[in-house]
Order: sequence, then structure tokens, then C-alpha cells
Amino acid sequence: MAVPRQWILMDAAARLWVEDFHLDAATCGMEGNWSVTKRTLRGGMSDGVDLIEVDNGELSFIVLPTRGMGIWKGTYRGLSIGWDSPVRGPVHPSLVDLQDRGGLGFLTGFDEAIVRCGLDSMGAPGPDVVPNNMGVPTQVDLTLHGRIANLPASQVEVAIQDGDPPELVVTGTVYETGLFYPGFRLVARVSTPLGANRLHITDQVTNLRGVAAEMELLYHCNFGRPFLEAGARLVTAARLVAPRDARAVEGIDTCDTYLDPTPGYVEQAYWYRLLGDDAGRTVAMLRNAAGDRGVALRFNLNELPAFAQWKNTAAISDGYVTGLEPATDYPNAKSFERDKGRLLRMEPGGVYTTHLDLEVHEDRAGVTGVEAEIARLQQQAERQVHREPVPEYSPGA
Amino acid sequence: MAVPRQWILMDAAARLWVEDFHLDAATCGMEGNWSVTKRTLRGGMSDGVDLIEVDNGELSFIVLPTRGMGIWKGTYRGLSIGWDSPVRGPVHPSLVDLQDRGGLGFLTGFDEAIVRCGLDSMGAPGPDVVPNNMGVPTQVDLTLHGRIANLPASQVEVAIQDGDPPELVVTGTVYETGLFYPGFRLVARVSTPLGANRLHITDQVTNLRGVAAEMELLYHCNFGRPFLEAGARLVTAARLVAPRDARAVEGIDTCDTYLDPTPGYVEQAYWYRLLGDDAGRTVAMLRNAAGDRGVALRFNLNELPAFAQWKNTAAISDGYVTGLEPATDYPNAKSFERDKGRLLRMEPGGVYTTHLDLEVHEDRAGVTGVEAEIARLQQQAERQVHREPVPEYSPGA
Amino acid sequence: MAVPRQWILMDAAARLWVEDFHLDAATCGMEGNWSVTKRTLRGGMSDGVDLIEVDNGELSFIVLPTRGMGIWKGTYRGLSIGWDSPVRGPVHPSLVDLQDRGGLGFLTGFDEAIVRCGLDSMGAPGPDVVPNNMGVPTQVDLTLHGRIANLPASQVEVAIQDGDPPELVVTGTVYETGLFYPGFRLVARVSTPLGANRLHITDQVTNLRGVAAEMELLYHCNFGRPFLEAGARLVTAARLVAPRDARAVEGIDTCDTYLDPTPGYVEQAYWYRLLGDDAGRTVAMLRNAAGDRGVALRFNLNELPAFAQWKNTAAISDGYVTGLEPATDYPNAKSFERDKGRLLRMEPGGVYTTHLDLEVHEDRAGVTGVEAEIARLQQQAERQVHREPVPEYSPGA
Repeated sequence: MAVPRQWILMDAAARLWVEDFHLDAATCGMEGNWSVTKRTLRGGMSDGVDLIEVDNGELSFIVLPTRGMGIWKGTYRGLSIGWDSPVRGPVHPSLVDLQDRGGLGFLTGFDEAIVRCGLDSMGAPGPDVVPNNMGVPTQVDLTLHGRIANLPASQVEVAIQDGDPPELVVTGTVYETGLFYPGFRLVARVSTPLGANRLHITDQVTNLRGVAAEMELLYHCNFGRPFLEAGARLVTAARLVAPRDARAVEGIDTCDTYLDPTPGYVEQAYWYRLLGDDAGRTVAMLRNAAGDRGVALRFNLNELPAFAQWKNTAAISDGYVTGLEPATDYPNAKSFERDKGRLLRMEPGGVYTTHLDLEVHEDRAGVTGVEAEIARLQQQAERQVHREPVPEYSPGA
Repeated sequence: MAVPRQWILMDAAARLWVEDFHLDAATCGMEGNWSVTKRTLRGGMSDGVDLIEVDNGELSFIVLPTRGMGIWKGTYRGLSIGWDSPVRGPVHPSLVDLQDRGGLGFLTGFDEAIVRCGLDSMGAPGPDVVPNNMGVPTQVDLTLHGRIANLPASQVEVAIQDGDPPELVVTGTVYETGLFYPGFRLVARVSTPLGANRLHITDQVTNLRGVAAEMELLYHCNFGRPFLEAGARLVTAARLVAPRDARAVEGIDTCDTYLDPTPGYVEQAYWYRLLGDDAGRTVAMLRNAAGDRGVALRFNLNELPAFAQWKNTAAISDGYVTGLEPATDYPNAKSFERDKGRLLRMEPGGVYTTHLDLEVHEDRAGVTGVEAEIARLQQQAERQVHREPVPEYSPGA
Repeated sequence: MAVPRQWILMDAAARLWVEDFHLDAATCGMEGNWSVTKRTLRGGMSDGVDLIEVDNGELSFIVLPTRGMGIWKGTYRGLSIGWDSPVRGPVHPSLVDLQDRGGLGFLTGFDEAIVRCGLDSMGAPGPDVVPNNMGVPTQVDLTLHGRIANLPASQVEVAIQDGDPPELVVTGTVYETGLFYPGFRLVARVSTPLGANRLHITDQVTNLRGVAAEMELLYHCNFGRPFLEAGARLVTAARLVAPRDARAVEGIDTCDTYLDPTPGYVEQAYWYRLLGDDAGRTVAMLRNAAGDRGVALRFNLNELPAFAQWKNTAAISDGYVTGLEPATDYPNAKSFERDKGRLLRMEPGGVYTTHLDLEVHEDRAGVTGVEAEIARLQQQAERQVHREPVPEYSPGA
């Protein structure tokens, strides 16, 4: 195996930072119409935000080291991957006050296609009790979806991984720390084979503390048009589907289909227990009404056992979007997830690895193929759709 | 009419940002001693703050795109426009924590001559109840004077507008948004005719949401010496003047005159209902003791029906200043203004336009002329000065 | 006396900022292996942080103008001065939310060797009552250790002070202000003689307000290995030692010695009343187990009458560190210190000056010499070690 070609674009410890970077087939003496470009935005809400645009020739996407290695937007053969948020980002984390509006400030920076939520906590804001610096249990107010998406990476590199085809790889390291705080290192790797319709995420989370930690990680994968539209569907293999709350109960009969942009629409969310193959692998897909466009997420239930569906088919200007959210647990308040025994426990120095693939289909054959896969997974068990919130998954149910 | 000459200095969507820009008569093949200069500050609390200095040859002022298009300071033939705040700004918004000190953090960045307050809320901090992302009414803590003054503009341009004389124009677009947040676009335009003693502000606020919104907008226009001094006066045409609270009651008999810098002085504020002409036009002026210097604000009561006077003649080092504040409503807590029916309601896509002119007078004739104008407006109605807070305008009164 | 050579690296008011600066013996036509280097970090959590590295040939240390003139790390002949915090800094203040976790957000930026805490407040977070803008007593939530360490300096200069030997000097001015806020100017000066084993801090705090103010200032001096290790000792001359709380009581018998890194260790803190000479001068030293390495702090009890010892011998990854903390009062909640009459009162325009010297010893003779000094100071009075918290120093005791 040949040595990968590798470029370090930022390394805080080494005081290394590259403002502009460009790599393409020509500069590497290779073939193809691919490129990797790094730049730094100036001015406005994005001042100081680093972008890395990866284009494999067919699929392109933008990685945001400054926003916790999130994936901002992408495009595959002209199909947009992501959504039009009311937020005009990417927003620099220094302008996001996570504690705004009772812990909802995350929403003033939220416009990515794929956002990691976590790592100490994710999900709904709310009080939690943690030991303070003196070891005394103290109430803290956790903010929506935690800190990781608003922390800049400390080390970023780009590589070309040999293979057939070769892969473009971006790897970044983000630290979520503080004295007497939980301490996590996220090594986030995203790669895409040249010419492929997909990208692969491999994340390694390490508990840096000398003591055990609780950890939560959710991938908030957000899609609008052209995949989301009236009659679009979420296709899953599930043993359980449950409404989050009374508002979700209203739409339980049509939870897997979507409306046109609907001004005043109030979000609906559903909790899933998905079915996977013998190795735990599953796939969930958002497909358009005609069934000739789809965006599919592949992940492993042994790593990411929970799945949430977020429906927010409001007006275009209010963020017409659905979120497909594989996670270590459900995005309820952390205290509830603790009570249910779903928080991950990480030993000192322990590492938790997750994989998530996103693939795009632009024809009926591709969509049908994934649907057939999902149908096979569904054969293992009945799909139980609860008509009311389930106490195991919804506080107060 | 000739085409205006126009330069885009920043456009986040186009990834355009100009670090340094300079325009003057010579570079334009025109006559006169005017200029427009843009630079970006580095270091300290101002690191990353963009300044646009507009000098029409007699009047100069600095626009702050990074602070919501506020006007930092100005000067007219050697007379300072603005004040010496304890804040040593301009302060980058990323260093302002609006939630500090129970929602008073705005005051750690507040040193401009003209600051817009709003747009979702302005005025006193306090609790309000809004629907959260699930449509559930939820208490949030609104912060003093809202967000707009601490949001960087996303698009900025400079233009020379043909005319006799030509005008220098700076226009900036600021977004106050967030998912499940109110969503507003402010297009803020400030212009000044070459050689004139005045500047014109035209603002357009658009409700970007697919649902109706409440909006508040106040222009916090702040002046210190040489206009403010012992014996300086606020000249207005008013049908009603009312003290805000018990502290303001103490000074009701002298509410239109000012003290020397007075260490330990506690602010006094008065609410006005002004009188305008048939078209709603009014003018308010701060003049010095001798009556040979004045700064006047012209606006329209159909657009900005409320007016507040803020007296803060504390020690120079504590911010010797008075605020003249035309607004859509009074700067009380938003919930109180809602109860009084004074919040603006904006339909989806609705636009609200306001105009505000500032003019400077440096001789007795100029001051006397404006005083005569105001006296004529006053003839329409008696000036009713309340000696106690009025329930319609003051909570708890 | 010759004129000192002086270079201004930043002056916000003059819009002066130098991105890179380097000075050494050769550039000055002098002898020796010393240098002063200024640079600005880019990328990650440190983006925009200015560093000034001072190297006198034997002792080097890094000053952080962007973080309130703190001293980040140092080294003396290969011995590290400072500690390995879980925080991977230096962190730009715009990424530190002081209000996070109930006022503990300071800890997400805390990794310096010497951090100033204050100036309006320092110590434990908690409620306090202050007059608001209307003069009405209002509750505010003070955050851990106040604002000063997260405020960028507005003016910074470097100088070579003539002498035998000459001294390298860095001086910075930091403003802690806000309208209706306390208003302080800190002029922080750090100097080191060429080739010496020590640095000198001279700070001048001015109350900028037109009214009297309360002030608190603590120097959080933090050391890890190689001075801190199993069997390392804090050597002090004290008339009183008291545990802060029940947790500190557990360790009262061994409060002056230290453990190896101990995963799960919960911090212990002790309050001291130190003994000084006739002029108030005292010295406290952290020495290693063998007694051949020590780091000593010299200060004056007339300026800094309080002293706190913070023991945090947790796992290396959790911040293995001890803090030696000379201060104007104890780092309890400000309201408690007020009740005890320990807050400094500063008149309008009043100036408070403090001095703090740090010196490093790398052999037995040096350590023994300081120990002998301390022993002589101790002869003045008995060392009273309380076995329980003392009401005068510990809330709730």
C-alpha cells in the first residue's frame, strides 16, 4: 500500500495555519476533475470561518473546521444537499451565544447539512446536576445540542488516500474541554472516493479525563429541496416508531411523508428503533415524491442505536427541512436519557468510534435499490407504530 | 438621471470582502474635499471591526458595519457628534455578552452616536413569553435593546448618488435571524450631500418569516459636549411629557434642561408624545446654553410615533450624555408595550420603512430657525407635562 | 539615566497594530542571547490571540495581551513554568462564555501560569446586589473570577530599560468597563532582567468612575510539574492556615504537601494569613520533593494581604496543578468578602498598585535560601492551623 499524500492545513500546537490551499488533479499529476480548496471567509457573521470545499468530480461538499467539522452544504450533479436555513451562515461560533433564549442559541448558527450534536450533552436544553469544582452536585443549564458544533478544530489535514478509486480525505481534531468540565477529543474524518455519489464519516471520540464520563453524539442531517417536497417519504426499517409529544401525535398517520412548505407549521418529531442486519448495519432514506431522487444514510446500530426524525415543513423562509438523526441516544434532555440508561459511559482514555455514510441517488433505480434493501431489513420484525408517546422515549408520556 | 457610481465592499454570499477602500474627489474626477474610507481595525476589543468613514467636506461620520450599521462618531466643522462613553470601542460584537448582568451586557459595547435598538425587542430587559420550537409558550429573558446593534452586516456598499450636490451613500444589510427565531432583514442606508450639515438615514425592515411578527425599532441618538452642557436644552413640540419613574419625577420641572457633569447622577428618562405637521414630520433639537450650537433630529411620527429623552449627566468619565430616541414605541419591557398595543405587527414579507435625519447647527441663526419651526408645531396643542408616571407609558404607574 | 528604548505594538486609540515583531541583541547592537517576539495566532480556538514571547536568555515566558495580559507559560533552563490544563489554549476570549455552567465558563479558557482575577469581582460565582442603571438595587450573577482575564488589552508596548543588567519590559493597558458598570483601567507591566531567574509584575489599577468602587484582584499562579510532584511542598510563613470547606478539612494535616497525580481527586483549598517583614514583604515557595527545584512568589502584604492555596492534584489529563494566589482578599463570593469588610474601596480616580515577583530556583542552595528566609519570617508568630473552616474566611463555617 502506497503512502497517502497528506497536507496539514492547521495545527494550533505547531502554530501552523494555511490561509488558502488548493489541490486538484493537475497539481497532483493525476487524472480527473476533482479538487480540494481551503479558504477563510472575511466579513460579516462568517468572519474568520475556514471552509474546505471537497469536490470529487460529481459530489462536492464543504467542511467547516471552525464549526466543529460540520458539513455545511453539498451538491451532487446539481442536486443540493442541505437546506436553506433562516440563518445566513456559516456563522462564526464567537457570535453564537448558546445560552440565548433559555438555551436555544444554537439555533442562531444552525444551517449545516450535517451537524454533530454533543458531546457532553445533546438534545433539548434543560437543567442537569453535575459535580462542581468542589465535587458538590450543582445544577447547570444544558443548552440545546451541546457545544461541539460551535468549537473550532485545533488540527486539520487533507489527504489523498490511494485506492481504486483514490479517496479525498479531510480530518480534523476538535477539543471539547475545560477545567472541571467533561473533556473530549473528537477526531472527525470525512472522505469521498473520486467520482462517487457518497461520503464517509468516521469519528473517534476519546474521553480525555482521568475519570469516567457520559457521552452523547447525534448527527443532525438536514435536507430540504429537491429531496424534500410534498409527497416525499422517509423510508426506514423499524421495529418501533413513536411520536415525541402531543404535536407529533397529530401527524402519526403520515409521519413518513412530507408536506409542501406550510407557513406556521410547528415541528413534529418521531423516535425510531431501527432494524439492522446481523452486523447492525442499517440504512434510512429520504426520497422525493416521484421516487427518482433520494439521499440515504448508512450507519451501524451497534454504534448509533437511536434514530430521530425531525419534520419541519414550514415556509421556505422559515427553514423547510427534515432532519434524519442517527445518534447514541435520543435528543431528550440529558437527565431523562440518563434515567433511561441510554447515556454512553466512557472510561478514562476510552474511545468510541462511529461511522456514517451519506449517499445520493438521482434515478429510480438507485432509489428502488435502497428501498429494496430496507424492505429486506424490515422483514425481521413487525413495524410497531405507537399512536401515543411512549414513556421509555418521551418525558412525561 | 445618471447612474450612481457604486462599490460593493462586502458581500458574504458572494464571498467578497474588501479590507481597505478609499474614494475621494480626485479618484472620481470630481471636485471637493470629500472622501469615503473603509478600513478594518486590528487588536484589542476592536479586532475585526470594519469602519467606513464618510467625510462630505464639512461633516464626517463613521459607520460600523460590524455593529449593525451604527454610526460611531462624527464631527461637523470641529464640533463632536457623539459622546465619550466609558466603553472604549468600537467593541467587536463577539466580545459583548448580551446576557451579562441580568441582560445588561449591551452596555459593555455601547459607545456610538446613533445605535439602532431592536428588532425583535428593544428597551428594558425582562421576561417575555414566546412560542418555542415546539410551539409551546415558553419564557425567555429578553436583553437590553435587543440584538441588532451587535450583529455584523452581511452586505455593504458605497455609492455616489448624482444630484446637486451629489450625495455619499453607505448601505448595509443586517440579518437578525435564527431557526425558530424572529427573522428580520434590515437594509440601512445613510447618506450625506457633499458639503452639507446633515445626514439622512433610511431603513427598511423586512419580516422574513412565513408568519406574522412583532417588531420594535428605536434610534438611540447620543450626544455629549459641546452640545450638552450646563443649561443646554432639549427643544421639542409635544402634546405630552411624562416621567418614566420616581427618579424622573424628581427632575420633572427641569426635564428639558441639563446639568454640568455631576458625579453620582442617576439617569432620568421622559416619555414624549410629539407634535408633527400634517404629514407627521417633526423635529427635536438639543441646543447648548448659549443657543448657538444645536443638533437636530428630523423624523416622521407616522413612522416613529414614540420619543424618549434619556438624561445621564453623570461625570465625564461615567458617560456624560443625553439620548434623543425616536422609536416605534417606548423602550419599556416588550411585554408591557405589547399590553399597550404599541408593538408593530408585520405580516409575512412585510416591509417597514423609517427615515431619520440629523443636522448640525453651529450658529445662532441655525438654532433659532429650528426653534421657530418647533414653536410653530407646538401651536397645534397644549404641552401637557405630567408630574407623575402615566400608566399608559410606565409599568407600575 | 538613559532613555529607554520603546516600541508600541498596539494602540487601539491610534489604530496602531503590529502583527509581527522581533527584537534581539543583534537588532539592538547589544550582547546576549535574549529576544522579544510578538506574533498573532491563527486558526482554531486561538485565532486572533496575540502572543509576546520574552526570553532573557535563561528565563522565557509568553505574555497574552488578548487575555488580559496574563502570562501563559514559561521556562527557565528547561524547567517548565505553568501547567498542562485540559484547556488547549490560549483561547480567544470571544469563545469563552463566562456565564456557562452557572458562571463557571472561565474554566473553558483557563490554562495560564499567571492569571489575574478581578477587577470588579473575583472568586466563586454567585449572586450579588448592585445598583442598576436606574439606581435600583438589582441582583446580578457574578461569574467565576470576573472579567479581566478575558478582556484584550487596548495598548501594548515593549521596552528595554537601561540598567545593569538591562531589563526587558512589556506593558499593556486593559479596560474593564461598561456604561453603568464598574470602570477600571489596569496597566500591567512585566519585566525581567537579562539572564535573571525572575520576572517582576507591577500593576496599576485605576478606578475610572466618577464614583467610589469596590475592587478585588487575585493572581492565580499555577504550577504543575516539575515543581509539583509527590512530596512537593508549599513553604510559607503564616500566622493562620484554615481549610476552605469540609473537603479541605480532610487534608488539613497534609495541606502543605502534595500527592502524585490522583485520578478523581477533588480540589482542596486553604486560606492563609501570611507573615511579612517590617515592610510587609513576604515570600511563598513551591518546592519539589528533593528540595532542589522551587518557584517562589514575592509580594507585599500591604498590597496583597490575602493568600489562597489551591490543590488540584488530579490526573495529569485533568489538570495536575496547584495555585498559589496572592490577592487583595479571599476568593469567596464577593458578597461574603464585602460582609467581612475585605473589599478594597477605591475613590474616583484612585489608583491601587501591586507588585508580584516570580523567581525560579534550580538547585538546593537556591531553595534552601528561600526556605531560610521564610523560616525567619515565621519566627514572628506562631503558625496557627485551624482544623475546621473559620467563619471569618469561609461562608457557612
